[in-house]
Amino acid sequence: MKEDQFSSEEEYLKWLEDSTVLPRGFSVGVTSFTFSPQEKKSDQPYFMNMGLVLCDSPTPSFAAVFTKNAFCGFPVVIGRELLTQESCTGVVVNNRIANVACPDGKESALAVTDGVMQLLSKEQRNGVLFPLSTGIIGWRLPVKAMKENLSSLVDQLQKKSIIPFSQAIMTTDRYPKAFTVKVGKGTITGVAKGAGMIEPNLATMLVFIFTDIDIPRKDLRAILDKSVQGSFNCISVDGDQSTSDTVMIISSGEVSGVSLEDFAAGLEEVTLFLAEDVVRNGEGCGHVIKVSIKNAPDKEIALLLGKAVVNSPLTKTAIFGNDPNVGRILQAVGDFIGTNGVDINRRDMAIWLGGEEIFSNERLSLDEEKELRLNAYLKRCEQESSGTSYPLHRRTVHIEIDLVSGDSSADVLGSDLSYDYIKENADYRT
Amino acid sequence: MKEDQFSSEEEYLKWLEDSTVLPRGFSVGVTSFTFSPQEKKSDQPYFMNMGLVLCDSPTPSFAAVFTKNAFCGFPVVIGRELLTQESCTGVVVNNRIANVACPDGKESALAVTDGVMQLLSKEQRNGVLFPLSTGIIGWRLPVKAMKENLSSLVDQLQKKSIIPFSQAIMTTDRYPKAFTVKVGKGTITGVAKGAGMIEPNLATMLVFIFTDIDIPRKDLRAILDKSVQGSFNCISVDGDQSTSDTVMIISSGEVSGVSLEDFAAGLEEVTLFLAEDVVRNGEGCGHVIKVSIKNAPDKEIALLLGKAVVNSPLTKTAIFGNDPNVGRILQAVGDFIGTNGVDINRRDMAIWLGGEEIFSNERLSLDEEKELRLNAYLKRCEQESSGTSYPLHRRTVHIEIDLVSGDSSADVLGSDLSYDYIKENADYRT
Repeated sequence: MKEDQFSSEEEYLKWLEDSTVLPRGFSVGVTSFTFSPQEKKSDQPYFMNMGLVLCDSPTPSFAAVFTKNAFCGFPVVIGRELLTQESCTGVVVNNRIANVACPDGKESALAVTDGVMQLLSKEQRNGVLFPLSTGIIGWRLPVKAMKENLSSLVDQLQKKSIIPFSQAIMTTDRYPKAFTVKVGKGTITGVAKGAGMIEPNLATMLVFIFTDIDIPRKDLRAILDKSVQGSFNCISVDGDQSTSDTVMIISSGEVSGVSLEDFAAGLEEVTLFLAEDVVRNGEGCGHVIKVSIKNAPDKEIALLLGKAVVNSPLTKTAIFGNDPNVGRILQAVGDFIGTNGVDINRRDMAIWLGGEEIFSNERLSLDEEKELRLNAYLKRCEQESSGTSYPLHRRTVHIEIDLVSGDSSADVLGSDLSYDYIKENADYRT
Repeated sequence: MKEDQFSSEEEYLKWLEDSTVLPRGFSVGVTSFTFSPQEKKSDQPYFMNMGLVLCDSPTPSFAAVFTKNAFCGFPVVIGRELLTQESCTGVVVNNRIANVACPDGKESALAVTDGVMQLLSKEQRNGVLFPLSTGIIGWRLPVKAMKENLSSLVDQLQKKSIIPFSQAIMTTDRYPKAFTVKVGKGTITGVAKGAGMIEPNLATMLVFIFTDIDIPRKDLRAILDKSVQGSFNCISVDGDQSTSDTVMIISSGEVSGVSLEDFAAGLEEVTLFLAEDVVRNGEGCGHVIKVSIKNAPDKEIALLLGKAVVNSPLTKTAIFGNDPNVGRILQAVGDFIGTNGVDINRRDMAIWLGGEEIFSNERLSLDEEKELRLNAYLKRCEQESSGTSYPLHRRTVHIEIDLVSGDSSADVLGSDLSYDYIKENADYRT
């Protein structure tokens, strides 16, 4: 894997095609069309993409983790119900409209999955199809236009590459995101869209993971839960949680003999990579920030403190400006600890930025040379916050906080707060 | 009081001078000078203002509420100790350096208050003097330069106006903030600096309230606590809590015969006015947002939900862009309710924006005409987010959320999220 630099979109797409494998037992189709929304008169056509990933035969080994947002989208409502079904045939995804809090949302989603089902083989129809949507809240799916394009979607099915699917589900993502890890003779491949600042439509994040490794459903669900806790639940771009966030995994079960431990380690690698990629590719993301909390009293405090620091607007704007204004990091830590009455070892706790100690013995240590070094460090971690359609590098701004008050830890990823974030979010619908 | 429009800085300052009264029993002095910080070589001089408010004679009737930030400034540490003292003679305040997490911070602050004390009458020296500071974190107070200017500070003492004090404590505030309420024959006058986006130096808010109404210390402290809960604790500009936030009240006790109820009502009026003014005058504040939560299961849920909505970056940026993207409000509500497992009456709950119902029966109600009306409403509530040195109007964007699930309520004030917020906070020290 090319760890550091890409110098062009072509180079990045080539890396993506070369390094990403569609696991055995799946086929992929995509299609694109225009429609007129019922909610808005518009002279310009609205474009919608649909993507379909099918199992060759229905599988009992599938799992999903959904948003906790109380006003979740209809696909999430349906998905929760489908999790109890015996077997799964695949997923059908659309961008542009999220199918949330609108009339007839459940019926619309089921009309689409039923439409696809009618085009499948008798065996495939024995499993359920999960509908997933991302886009504007409150608008209805254009069911008629979608159904008219289902045969095109099915006609396009191929077994060569997952990349067209990762491109079809993009909205304001700056580049497609996919990652493959090989485990023994099997493969785990994840695809992500969103989230946070890359998706003004309520920060929707959709992650699909496909594997040919045979894992019993119960184990698959437990392993996915754990993997999501340590990855997607540890990114916090703007503290907003979408109504549609979904992480789903389907196994075709074609490769046996991989241990649960090896599979879990591979899945962790995929989810950690995609979680960071989701932050990095955000429109408006000028720096990826990684906050590592060490020796916290418990896991929850570690995670919440990490999120508090990475979501502090004053910390985020300082990093955007390459300003090593370390007092703001201290302020965010002190705010969380004081407000929540966390009992920590204040005398011994310490904070580092880019490997440099900036706080210890209850004092900030600042001097001009250190400030210049930290300014250069922040500049080195900077990436263009809009425009580029590939990742320039994979560096993160690293903030380490050692509470010296326990043995729990957490790594939380987030983004700085830039002009482009405002630009993207202030008037995306106009 | 002029409720709505000011058309020039002169008009605003005239209103401020005309409407604001220095209560009996106090005198006010200010001074300004340059210094060279120990932490930074700079060709340009750094300016510092100091402000002094003295009681004619020490009073037992004083109270203060401080930040909960665990790494609070030395003035807060000292202030907490001084609260136990028998009587208070006044406050001495500096801007530019916050005196937080630096070496010798306590000694520096006490050197300044001791210096002032030596210039006061024997009677005044019987009370304590509270030091307050706002500005950069981690830097030391320039004690030598401050002490050299104390006699100038005391020489300037006058009994005519509090406005010079309200101007002296400004940092990036766009205009001075003061407000007087008359209660019976007495007066309550508040002065505020900060907070949030107006103060890149960690959002420090300092509020001083002076009154000539005689209120026993115990009652004064209880009434201040309650008043702060409903005002300054209900503004949330960016979720960051400063290391120095302080709200202080001193009574000269010269006017008797005002009931506790009347005094409390007057104080509430002052604190509510200043809390909104503190948000409105923020550099980068394009709209003041008021979120009213009604019929919540309990008070804490009402307050936290209000803060969650007013701090949602996606809601804030939409309002900045005058985009009635009401799905984002729903998303913020659903995120809070879902994540915190709050049991509410989903079927009956409703949301209004600018008096228009936008959500009920679990559905967003959107149409083009309503969207145009809401867009016009948001534009009407807009103010220039930087540059102007007076409030153009006092309108707020009003979001009402009726949970139909109890009888608790809360009003929370916040700001939108604008380009100017980023500009102000990304590189304020350069």
